Amino acid sequence: MIPIDLCLLQWNTYNTRIQKTLDAISDENFNRPIVPNGNSPSWILGHLVEADDALLELFGIGQRLYPDLKTVYHHERGSNQQGHLTKSELIERWNAVSAKLDQTFKSWTEKDWLSKHTAVSEEDFKKEPHRNRLNVLLSRVGHKASHLGQIAMQK
Amino acid sequence: MIPIDLCLLQWNTYNTRIQKTLDAISDENFNRPIVPNGNSPSWILGHLVEADDALLELFGIGQRLYPDLKTVYHHERGSNQQGHLTKSELIERWNAVSAKLDQTFKSWTEKDWLSKHTAVSEEDFKKEPHRNRLNVLLSRVGHKASHLGQIAMQK
Repeated sequence: MIPIDLCLLQWNTYNTRIQKTLDAISDENFNRPIVPNGNSPSWILGHLVEADDALLELFGIGQRLYPDLKTVYHHERGSNQQGHLTKSELIERWNAVSAKLDQTFKSWTEKDWLSKHTAVSEEDFKKEPHRNRLNVLLSRVGHKASHLGQIAMQK
Repeated sequence: MIPIDLCLLQWNTYNTRIQKTLDAISDENFNRPIVPNGNSPSWILGHLVEADDALLELFGIGQRLYPDLKTVYHHERGSNQQGHLTKSELIERWNAVSAKLDQTFKSWTEKDWLSKHTAVSEEDFKKEPHRNRLNVLLSRVGHKASHLGQIAMQK
């Protein structure tokens, strides 16, 4: 058990928690804004799938699988944005992205995790060595946890 | 830059984000439930201070500084619970707890972080070596991130 294993445990834990929450939520609550003029769980799910898809490029694994998600789910434009996918379409895409990420994560050594991500230059990385893949992974877990806290308020 | 440094960076990042959010929120929004019959940012802050205070015991650092917080803020009883402290009282307590935690964290080696916490027996820890202090720290960051996501919806 090394620190990176614990970081990946958090990654897996929050993916599982989100899936369980989505399994339990009613269709009505899934599509309704959580607070007036706020985002719906539906939009948040698309936003999380888009964020995970972006990791493929940020980690240098490959290209995004679903670049069209950026249009609807990248910025917090609220739930009135046109072009939402259905829950089952989003979950299918999330599973495809997760499978590709998790397969790669299993193969990475500590050195791979502490290597720079693709959005930082070699020069900046020398000055800011925390801008590595592991830091991005942990940040994404926090991002998911924040949105899960929001979805959990929808009762 | 080792993985534990990145975990502590997340810990610090979320503490800073919560402080900034609290600095920016109006008194009215601080005290108002975020969704009908839900928790207020006031209650959530108390809940987070209580959770951090509990780490002193869970990590074997010492006793809780504010055991009375458990009565009001330990379970999610909603914002109608009696005995709320004021925002400045809660922040003062949070700063005291954080100072004690952060002082200890600076002194810990990787071995200290991967040691068992006080709520797991030696026997169980052999079977479940992930039940260590670092795992608790990461879980608490996720917990904070979830509640920060909720407070951020209060507009």
